[in-house]
Amino acid sequence: YELQVSDGYQVGRVNGLAVMGEDSGIMLPVMAEVTPSQGPGQVIATGQLKEMAEESVQNVSAIIKKFSDQNLAEKDVHIQFVQTGQSGVDGDSASITVATAVISALEDVGVSQNLAMTGSLSVRGDVLPVGGVTHKIEAAAKAGCKTVIIPKANEQDVMIEDEYREMIEIIPVSHISEVLEVALEGEGEKDSLIARLKSITGSALQDGNVAGPSSPSPQ
Amino acid sequence: YELQVSDGYQVGRVNGLAVMGEDSGIMLPVMAEVTPSQGPGQVIATGQLKEMAEESVQNVSAIIKKFSDQNLAEKDVHIQFVQTGQSGVDGDSASITVATAVISALEDVGVSQNLAMTGSLSVRGDVLPVGGVTHKIEAAAKAGCKTVIIPKANEQDVMIEDEYREMIEIIPVSHISEVLEVALEGEGEKDSLIARLKSITGSALQDGNVAGPSSPSPQ
Amino acid sequence: YELQVSDGYQVGRVNGLAVMGEDSGIMLPVMAEVTPSQGPGQVIATGQLKEMAEESVQNVSAIIKKFSDQNLAEKDVHIQFVQTGQSGVDGDSASITVATAVISALEDVGVSQNLAMTGSLSVRGDVLPVGGVTHKIEAAAKAGCKTVIIPKANEQDVMIEDEYREMIEIIPVSHISEVLEVALEGEGEKDSLIARLKSITGSALQDGNVAGPSSPSPQ
Amino acid sequence: YELQVSDGYQVGRVNGLAVMGEDSGIMLPVMAEVTPSQGPGQVIATGQLKEMAEESVQNVSAIIKKFSDQNLAEKDVHIQFVQTGQSGVDGDSASITVATAVISALEDVGVSQNLAMTGSLSVRGDVLPVGGVTHKIEAAAKAGCKTVIIPKANEQDVMIEDEYREMIEIIPVSHISEVLEVALEGEGEKDSLIARLKSITGSALQDGNVAGPSSPSPQ
Amino acid sequence: YELQVSDGYQVGRVNGLAVMGEDSGIMLPVMAEVTPSQGPGQVIATGQLKEMAEESVQNVSAIIKKFSDQNLAEKDVHIQFVQTGQSGVDGDSASITVATAVISALEDVGVSQNLAMTGSLSVRGDVLPVGGVTHKIEAAAKAGCKTVIIPKANEQDVMIEDEYREMIEIIPVSHISEVLEVALEGEGEKDSLIARLKSITGSALQDGNVAGPSSPSPQ
Amino acid sequence: YELQVSDGYQVGRVNGLAVMGEDSGIMLPVMAEVTPSQGPGQVIATGQLKEMAEESVQNVSAIIKKFSDQNLAEKDVHIQFVQTGQSGVDGDSASITVATAVISALEDVGVSQNLAMTGSLSVRGDVLPVGGVTHKIEAAAKAGCKTVIIPKANEQDVMIEDEYREMIEIIPVSHISEVLEVALEGEGEKDSLIARLKSITGSALQDGNVAGPSSPSPQ
Ligand SMILES: [Ca+2]
Ligand SMILES: [Ca+2]
Ligand SMILES: [Ca+2]
Ligand SMILES: [Ca+2]
Ligand SMILES: [Ca+2]
Ligand SMILES: [Ca+2]
Ligand SMILES: [Ca+2]
Ligand SMILES: [Ca+2]
Ligand SMILES: [Ca+2]
Ligand SMILES: [Ca+2]
Ligand SMILES: [Ca+2]
Ligand SMILES: [Ca+2]
Repeated sequence: YELQVSDGYQVGRVNGLAVMGEDSGIMLPVMAEVTPSQGPGQVIATGQLKEMAEESVQNVSAIIKKFSDQNLAEKDVHIQFVQTGQSGVDGDSASITVATAVISALEDVGVSQNLAMTGSLSVRGDVLPVGGVTHKIEAAAKAGCKTVIIPKANEQDVMIEDEYREMIEIIPVSHISEVLEVALEGEGEKDSLIARLKSITGSALQDGNVAGPSSPSPQ
Repeated sequence: YELQVSDGYQVGRVNGLAVMGEDSGIMLPVMAEVTPSQGPGQVIATGQLKEMAEESVQNVSAIIKKFSDQNLAEKDVHIQFVQTGQSGVDGDSASITVATAVISALEDVGVSQNLAMTGSLSVRGDVLPVGGVTHKIEAAAKAGCKTVIIPKANEQDVMIEDEYREMIEIIPVSHISEVLEVALEGEGEKDSLIARLKSITGSALQDGNVAGPSSPSPQ
Repeated sequence: YELQVSDGYQVGRVNGLAVMGEDSGIMLPVMAEVTPSQGPGQVIATGQLKEMAEESVQNVSAIIKKFSDQNLAEKDVHIQFVQTGQSGVDGDSASITVATAVISALEDVGVSQNLAMTGSLSVRGDVLPVGGVTHKIEAAAKAGCKTVIIPKANEQDVMIEDEYREMIEIIPVSHISEVLEVALEGEGEKDSLIARLKSITGSALQDGNVAGPSSPSPQ
Repeated sequence: YELQVSDGYQVGRVNGLAVMGEDSGIMLPVMAEVTPSQGPGQVIATGQLKEMAEESVQNVSAIIKKFSDQNLAEKDVHIQFVQTGQSGVDGDSASITVATAVISALEDVGVSQNLAMTGSLSVRGDVLPVGGVTHKIEAAAKAGCKTVIIPKANEQDVMIEDEYREMIEIIPVSHISEVLEVALEGEGEKDSLIARLKSITGSALQDGNVAGPSSPSPQ
Repeated sequence: YELQVSDGYQVGRVNGLAVMGEDSGIMLPVMAEVTPSQGPGQVIATGQLKEMAEESVQNVSAIIKKFSDQNLAEKDVHIQFVQTGQSGVDGDSASITVATAVISALEDVGVSQNLAMTGSLSVRGDVLPVGGVTHKIEAAAKAGCKTVIIPKANEQDVMIEDEYREMIEIIPVSHISEVLEVALEGEGEKDSLIARLKSITGSALQDGNVAGPSSPSPQ
Repeated sequence: YELQVSDGYQVGRVNGLAVMGEDSGIMLPVMAEVTPSQGPGQVIATGQLKEMAEESVQNVSAIIKKFSDQNLAEKDVHIQFVQTGQSGVDGDSASITVATAVISALEDVGVSQNLAMTGSLSVRGDVLPVGGVTHKIEAAAKAGCKTVIIPKANEQDVMIEDEYREMIEIIPVSHISEVLEVALEGEGEKDSLIARLKSITGSALQDGNVAGPSSPSPQ
């Protein structure tokens, strides 16, 4: 089942990146949908998430609840790490992937399908460093992606081989608004989304020096 | 207790398929009913579901909540994997079976009883690949089914013996709307259901290239 | 403590049947009561129920919620497997016993006390096969019951000794409405209950061929 | 700390009886209070209750909810097995003790303090047999009680020594209304409580032949 | 970090007493605060409470809910066993300490800081015996307390050395209202609080003979 | 990933301090955000918090709920211990860090980024002693902080080397209002916040002698 990358845009589907074993990466899509709720609104994540991954979804939900101009109290947010199997999902490096998939589903705006991304997220929208960026970038390139988003704090860790340098553009970011700028389809609607996102997390951005933490998350 | 296949239609009952051990399949029906709730509406699944199967029910619920034109907030959705015994249900390959049973119960439309199906489901309606398709198709044929639905991404995996080729028609699908097109009874009402289903998950379908994931689910 | 069978009718009390060890049966009553709830309405089952037994209560609740013309949202349904001790209740073969006890309590209609029953139940009212029918029938006869209800799919499994054949009438059934036809007291009110029950689960009955599953439940 | 028995009446306090080890009994008081709730009304039982004891409290709650003419939805029912220590409470033989303590607290009617009692309870008000009655009766006599209530189905099990026969009156009962007739203070108010209790569980009493189960509960 | 005892009064802070190991006591403060709730009102206790300690908090909550003339449905009651570390809190002998701290916080009335106390509590306000009173009294004296409250049922257990007899006054109590009489600041407001507390638990007090249980709680 | 300290102010981000192993400290930021809730308002803390850390968040929430002039019933409070990895967060010494981050987010007031802090918190606002202050102060100095807040009760424990004495100012505090006085940006708005905080926890402050507990928390 070769995972093929298409050129168009798709709503609620974003290519994430994970590390497998010691020295290889893999591209894993995340899908999201927002539905009417049955009971109180919930964020429901599937794909055998381990503890840190569950917590990363809670961190992402802070951004989503703050961002949404819909009332989420009567909505369920479904997040699916697609067919991760029994091994499941560990770590928090898919945080920006999840955030992008949910915002795409909420706003019905397409996400570029030849783009992949990795990055942890603070509850205030900062993109925080992750582990394994080199292997992840190579996996994105091999899968046919033209662009890959990584945390700015990981720029120094990129040591990919030259053959990949030409295949894929690497975009370092430090805030979730920059992720959406790259990932979302369209212009006018996108710009207004990003402006809204910046305004709710504005104070974090204002002086441009969000110091990263002292150690990256493992995956 | 030979499981006999009948020719008619039945509401809320769909033939699923599972793999037993290494190299044989089995047909296992799924039944569904929708009732008034006591407390907040719930999705209640029985049959000793293991973790991945529980999560597959949560993924299916995204489609159901989005699809239903009834308010599910005061309804319970009951899903019963019939008499699976102590061994229970594993994996997510019954997702389209569950979705079909629940939509049949919700809408009071019959499902063909000489049809069996296997397939995983994304929260946006994509039918994703599963494991063991060859054994499952043979089990459906042996049980007397005339038609079997499999994920389009599994087409290449079908290696059934010639004797079965003549007994059973194999229909590959890539979206839940195609499953319902084959499974549901009637014409007019069915078409309107399918149109509604396509409209709620339309963006996923529009460009026809929902890339499957890199590995099938195990069961 | 010989369990004595009386001839009259009693509300909310039904004789169930279980298998003990390898080759003997036992009669175990189930009692039910419906009360105002404190918080959101609940189904509360006691008697040290193991997992499959808990799930069978959830399946029964689908029938009850659909059937009740009272709103169960502010009612609790209490189900008591009487004095089953530390060993508790396993399996799903008391499903029709539980359903009958609760419907009796809900509607304040008596249940025959010289009747015993065994049978699993689908969420749509089908009576499904169980294990150990021969031992169970013999236990009912020994306890002094005049009638015993078993699943139609188990008819072929009955191998009771001749002495019991004369003591007890065996009634095979395939739908919960047939159970109530035999078990409940009275005529007019009973018929209207059964008509109501058939109407809510009618589509399952209409073509009379609810194929049973391929294996019976163990107890 | 000799537990001394007084002659008066007290609201919300009832002497229960338990078996310790193989061959001795102990008197253990149960206290109850009914308060405004914080969240949804709850039944809260303390004293390190083991599973069967927790379930017996749920069974008792069926009687309480049915009986109360106050709405329990905004009330909490507190039940305290006093200072049972780390060993906690097992079995269901304190059910009638708990029921009496709660009804006393709910209705603000005193309970006789030189009375002790043991008995299991069905959700419809039947008093069911328990184990260890002889040791329990002796413990009540030693503690200075003048009266002890036991289940009618246990009458045959009483084998107390002659010295105790003269110290204590043994009252066998088969329904919770008979327990209250003996235990509660006063006349007029008590009679109206008992009449109300009989009316809500009346169908269980009407033909006077509530067959007990085949085995007593262990404690 | 010598724990120093001050002479004044403080709202929501009460000196409790615990036993450490075999033969020494320790003074441990309990703090309480009452706040608006987020969801349904809750009682939240911290300090690594073990099971019996958690249950003692539930027992105390019965008194608090009954006593409060504020509606607790939209309030949270916070109880903090201060810096008990990883070893946490066991047993129920801090019940009267917790009750006093919460009532102080609810009513904004100060508690004497050169007073310490130990005692279990029934859901109806009785002070029940505890273990280790001698070691606890000595710990209170060493810490500089001038007064210590113990359960009346423990009076016979006090075997403190003469040097402590002169340092500290021992006050035995049998009801929570007597604890507050000693502990709270002021006169007029205090008396009205105590009168209210007696009225809600009045029936327990009326005949003055609340028989204690047969064994004290271990800590 | 050297954690760099900046000179400005940032909303919802505070430098905490922890002990690693036996003899070294580390600076760990805490971030907070307050969002509309989906269901009932919740406090959600991530970073693999162990039991004592979870409880310290509950203690902090008492201050927050009392302090907030917004109704928290329809808000979620997100607290993120940033990238603490699999080892997670233990102990309660980050309590004042968490309280400061949440109040900053609630009130949209910046926190000084060249300040670090350590301290436990009572539910009434007292700053309680912690362990490892010397190592923590040195870690703050090494990271470039100009100021560090410690509990007044830990003043006697500070044994830092002379080189650090000149690099960093140590401010001992005994109440959360003093922490905010040092940490928050601005003047007018800050003073009114602090006045409000003092008024809600005023009785604890009034006589200035909040005796600390007898042992510090371990981390
Ligand atoms: Ca999960
Ligand atoms: Ca959409
Ligand atoms: Ca389950
Ligand atoms: Ca229907
Ligand atoms: Ca249970
Ligand atoms: Ca009735
Ligand atoms: Ca408990
Ligand atoms: Ca009262
Ligand atoms: Ca706890
Ligand atoms: Ca106050
Ligand atoms: Ca957690
Ligand atoms: Ca803000």
